[in-house]
Amino acid sequence: MPRYRITVEYDGTPFVGWQAQENGPSVQGNLEHAIKNFSAEVVRVKGAGRTDAGVHALGQVAHFDLKKSWDPLRIREALNFHLRPDPIAALNCKEVSAEFDARFSAIARHYLYRILNRRPRAVLDVNRVWQVGVPLDHEAMHDAAQVLVGHHDFTTFRAKACQAKSPMRTLAKLSVSRSGEEIHIKASARSFLHNQIRSLAGTLKMVGEGKWTKADVKRVLERRDRKACAAVAPPHGLYLTRVDYPGENRLPPATVQE
Amino acid sequence: MPRYRITVEYDGTPFVGWQAQENGPSVQGNLEHAIKNFSAEVVRVKGAGRTDAGVHALGQVAHFDLKKSWDPLRIREALNFHLRPDPIAALNCKEVSAEFDARFSAIARHYLYRILNRRPRAVLDVNRVWQVGVPLDHEAMHDAAQVLVGHHDFTTFRAKACQAKSPMRTLAKLSVSRSGEEIHIKASARSFLHNQIRSLAGTLKMVGEGKWTKADVKRVLERRDRKACAAVAPPHGLYLTRVDYPGENRLPPATVQE
Repeated sequence: MPRYRITVEYDGTPFVGWQAQENGPSVQGNLEHAIKNFSAEVVRVKGAGRTDAGVHALGQVAHFDLKKSWDPLRIREALNFHLRPDPIAALNCKEVSAEFDARFSAIARHYLYRILNRRPRAVLDVNRVWQVGVPLDHEAMHDAAQVLVGHHDFTTFRAKACQAKSPMRTLAKLSVSRSGEEIHIKASARSFLHNQIRSLAGTLKMVGEGKWTKADVKRVLERRDRKACAAVAPPHGLYLTRVDYPGENRLPPATVQE
Repeated sequence: MPRYRITVEYDGTPFVGWQAQENGPSVQGNLEHAIKNFSAEVVRVKGAGRTDAGVHALGQVAHFDLKKSWDPLRIREALNFHLRPDPIAALNCKEVSAEFDARFSAIARHYLYRILNRRPRAVLDVNRVWQVGVPLDHEAMHDAAQVLVGHHDFTTFRAKACQAKSPMRTLAKLSVSRSGEEIHIKASARSFLHNQIRSLAGTLKMVGEGKWTKADVKRVLERRDRKACAAVAPPHGLYLTRVDYPGENRLPPATVQE
């Protein structure tokens, strides 16, 4: 029973999230539907990251098994044909060993959070960025972000609904940079807690506005209390950009702190 | 009677183009409507570039006169309030002298043409890029583009409907570069003919595919015959990025060849 790995791009706007749910269309559900349409097989597609409603992906990774063997390129083409007109595209497809698991084999996940830092609203990038009108100091944000990097109890930065057994995570990288009107927050870790990056982004925005200092960020981290977190940033600025697996696409050693 | 200059960003998708027309909503018409809504004055808004239907702008410049004097910042805010929910935003507004004319004072216009060079269709950038599935050689495109730079008769590269008196134009810059899956064509000139950049982009795509050589591009330029042009590239990859005026935002001297 061959196993296939796909890399998927999607616009999260019209979906209830990655995960198939009763209350609306999901990325996972649409992929399973497209697979059924070309192969007549009913499968479960397993993703590396369960992105929330409105969160986008440039490089989500998923796997599924088919009884019949297919040319991976044909799978990609058939998926893209049957996914139309929904905003999901399979960027590539390859056959992998039965040991490969998109979720459990992943050694690093990379996210980008885009802030459009200007007063006029986003027009070309509507639903693609968080528009923040107050000028943000990206250098102060980057500096404060460094107290969050490393192995910590991230209780302050996880959703109450988070199902992870432990609030301990190792944040390998959290950087903030500016490109014109945009501020980019890049986060890398082996795994993240539910709403962790949006919670971190909301907190760093407080620093950018000058309302919180680096010491405040350290303090709220150490509080280990969800109520200490700043307002969570909206989903539409967040992108799952890449997932790494052993032996490929590794993070440069300098950025991995695990 | 004070004159105001605005810089405007828009998503060209829902519009018949910059220019007010009978057959649908236009950027110019929407701006004039928004001005009327806050000032009760009926004005004509004059733009630097008359972009076609589907063409976007990151930095269109326009001007208009009002009988009453306003704080420019208030104009910007009022415009953005009244432009909602249409995808047009005024990025800034300032009062200028009566000699300033958005169209005739402009000394350079800068455009970007975005090609998404991959087989899976655009998902996050739908209506923002021209998706070309065949691999394109951007270096060959850039090299061929250089025969088009300079002062030429661009009859081959202008729409039949072009109303300019002369087909002579000086193309100051035409560069092609790659950024991941995207190919960026950047074009700068004092002014362009109707459909000129989309005609150039369509022609460079033929070079990228290996169907035409640099010599072919020179030959079709010298034919001065619209029928010699390659298929015109679609509007949704094109962006008016910036307009320059005397004494500000000048092109670096090295890139201006006029």
